[in-house]
Amino acid sequence: MKALQVMPQMVPFRTTSPANGKHRFPREMPPVGLHIIAELYGVDPALISYVKDVEPVVESIVEEAGLTRLQSYYHQFHPHGVTGIVLLAESHVSLHTWPEHGLVNLDIFTCGDPAQAQKAFELFLERFRPASYRHLQLERG
Amino acid sequence: MKALQVMPQMVPFRTTSPANGKHRFPREMPPVGLHIIAELYGVDPALISYVKDVEPVVESIVEEAGLTRLQSYYHQFHPHGVTGIVLLAESHVSLHTWPEHGLVNLDIFTCGDPAQAQKAFELFLERFRPASYRHLQLERG
Repeated sequence: MKALQVMPQMVPFRTTSPANGKHRFPREMPPVGLHIIAELYGVDPALISYVKDVEPVVESIVEEAGLTRLQSYYHQFHPHGVTGIVLLAESHVSLHTWPEHGLVNLDIFTCGDPAQAQKAFELFLERFRPASYRHLQLERG
Repeated sequence: MKALQVMPQMVPFRTTSPANGKHRFPREMPPVGLHIIAELYGVDPALISYVKDVEPVVESIVEEAGLTRLQSYYHQFHPHGVTGIVLLAESHVSLHTWPEHGLVNLDIFTCGDPAQAQKAFELFLERFRPASYRHLQLERG
């Protein structure tokens, strides 16, 4: 697989003004974290149909990326499909799989070192081997 | 509070081509869900410091929005700050609070009826009463 180019991308968050009409931008506070949002396409359904196959992949990626796992939860949909969420000291990782579409909706949201989110994303691509994917990065905060 | 205008917004997901050089766009498959990503600013720290205060708000919003809760998890950071994640049959809701900044990072990701996500978002704005906020909506899938 070609090396992943994970470059910062600014996404035009829409600023909306409620009640008091005040916009808070431009802000002085730096972002609190990096959120990588990705869709993986053309993933082998055998990799993403069951919790028994998805859970060890996710857990090992969290560990290899150096993230701090607080709690994980996996749900088995029937006849297939998985939701997995890992609550991290640095925020969270979530994925929703659609084996019938070969699709994974992936979110990696980390506060702290952005390199950890990028590392985790690279590992997901290695393990799920999508035929293609799209992703964006948001600076959260 | 002024009525919330939740309008669909296309966000330019960056399409990245891995290994095989194939892009999957334009796609024929419709989106699987709506993901509302929001930052709430100027939230009263008393509302978002402790799990005991955040949990009932989140749980009631999930119920009022008609979402199907599978499992919830809340983590108390010290001296303050909360991570809450609700795993839904329709995907997930997550929030990370930063009382010291009056900040909430909120994600509402639902498959199925987009109006449920929008309803949940409106309810979060009502309960947390941010001085301002920004948000975007992604069509996931």
